[in-house]
Amino acid sequence: MKFAKMHGLGNCYVYVNQWQELIPEERLELLARVVSDVHTGVGSDGLILIGPSECADFRMRIFNADGSEAKNCGNGLRCVAKYVYERRMIDRREFTIETLGGTVSVEVDADFGRKVRQVTVDMGAPRLTKAEVPMLGDPASTTIDEEVAIVSETYRLTALSMGNPHAILFVPDVNEVPIHEIGPSIEFAPIFPERVNVGFVQVRGPREIDYRVWERGSGITQACGTGACAAVAAGILNGLLERNTPITVHLLGGDLEIVWSENSHIYMKGPAEFILDGEFFPAQKT
Amino acid sequence: MKFAKMHGLGNCYVYVNQWQELIPEERLELLARVVSDVHTGVGSDGLILIGPSECADFRMRIFNADGSEAKNCGNGLRCVAKYVYERRMIDRREFTIETLGGTVSVEVDADFGRKVRQVTVDMGAPRLTKAEVPMLGDPASTTIDEEVAIVSETYRLTALSMGNPHAILFVPDVNEVPIHEIGPSIEFAPIFPERVNVGFVQVRGPREIDYRVWERGSGITQACGTGACAAVAAGILNGLLERNTPITVHLLGGDLEIVWSENSHIYMKGPAEFILDGEFFPAQKT
Repeated sequence: MKFAKMHGLGNCYVYVNQWQELIPEERLELLARVVSDVHTGVGSDGLILIGPSECADFRMRIFNADGSEAKNCGNGLRCVAKYVYERRMIDRREFTIETLGGTVSVEVDADFGRKVRQVTVDMGAPRLTKAEVPMLGDPASTTIDEEVAIVSETYRLTALSMGNPHAILFVPDVNEVPIHEIGPSIEFAPIFPERVNVGFVQVRGPREIDYRVWERGSGITQACGTGACAAVAAGILNGLLERNTPITVHLLGGDLEIVWSENSHIYMKGPAEFILDGEFFPAQKT
Repeated sequence: MKFAKMHGLGNCYVYVNQWQELIPEERLELLARVVSDVHTGVGSDGLILIGPSECADFRMRIFNADGSEAKNCGNGLRCVAKYVYERRMIDRREFTIETLGGTVSVEVDADFGRKVRQVTVDMGAPRLTKAEVPMLGDPASTTIDEEVAIVSETYRLTALSMGNPHAILFVPDVNEVPIHEIGPSIEFAPIFPERVNVGFVQVRGPREIDYRVWERGSGITQACGTGACAAVAAGILNGLLERNTPITVHLLGGDLEIVWSENSHIYMKGPAEFILDGEFFPAQKT
């Protein structure tokens, strides 16, 4: 099976071009598990298929390392955009990608040799009500700098959804926070019935933040695209960051540039990289 | 850079053919670290170079994921043998591979299509004296079922060297042993001045054992070739296993067949697998 391995800020997937490789639907779950294993497979966070769409320029399907299908992945969208543009599967620099979570617009920033430097993704509008997060309490109210008691501690949280739920805490120093303790404590708090991603934000200035994430089900990761958007939205809602202006977000895996625009949508701009092109040999019985 | 990713019982490396790729000596340490990273590189336990030798048919150099050069690797030797035989770099089924730890004889078991099913590696003679392990105490004496006090516990150990030091414990059930506690406690005991790999052996019969390993510097791993040899030697020294007979060793990553032969050498037979052929793109600055 021919494939590419790519990463966006260290979030890496095996990418398969469905015009090149036909994989039966019933094999996808197992294939995602097999290729993700670092010891006997390629080694990745999962499998992403790039194929034809009936309602967009391309369709992207994301399978996690455990074989489950995911709705969306910001780092993966940037990689898919780079893949199809550099490999001349589309000529326009603005195009659309269908995902299980909806259709997304992307724009590539490329040089004359078609080498993609950065990709901007329209991440949609943040959803702010407790019903949308979801979070217990008055369903129509928002959660902005709200005191929430969890176990024996009280946290000031801003909570919102970027398709998935995020709870954001502002801290004086992201490198001093005991993320391994606070992260799971908030992730599993009963007030978040679908659990929650927990973001820690240190504001460096009105256009610059450091962001660390505890991801629901994954723990500390190198980068979380929807979380970086949620962190910027939370900063703006709390009057700490500027709207309609690019905000630089420093993550463990690198930097993203996030704008919460006048049209209410959040745009994420960042890098995507090819790691390798390969041919994968499924295990043979000896 | 063209490469193959292969594994032996889950122990995986990036293999580079030095007739195909010329890598300057000063880049090797960094390259090993870069390709081993699962998020931004290939994802492996390290880098292995296959090149010409002045004293053997091939020369193999092993670089760990941290960039340090290793002396030898039983799982890697089987993969190198499969690589050069299947890719028609040699016609004989018995040949020699030079390593930093010495020159090793290998023999491939292949079908008519040159597909290698199993590889047998001459692992040399076990070294049994305390001086050779190394282990504190009478340098000329051996350590066979010897009571050793470590911290607040007493263990019955058999210790020997297969080029690297191994301490073997016989247990009633390898799945019930607290390896994470006993492993590091013995690894760092002052009686082993160069530390030690710790093996746990459950004897299923005179020709079959289960083996779990706590590897010096790595913790629990899927498989350890020298450790499987040490486990069989220890079983024979304790009168629990047969000599001059193939012993099946069940490891987490799969099975090995080990013989302690009349000529005093130990032979290890096991599988090796190609995972993928790839072209690696070193990171480009955006």
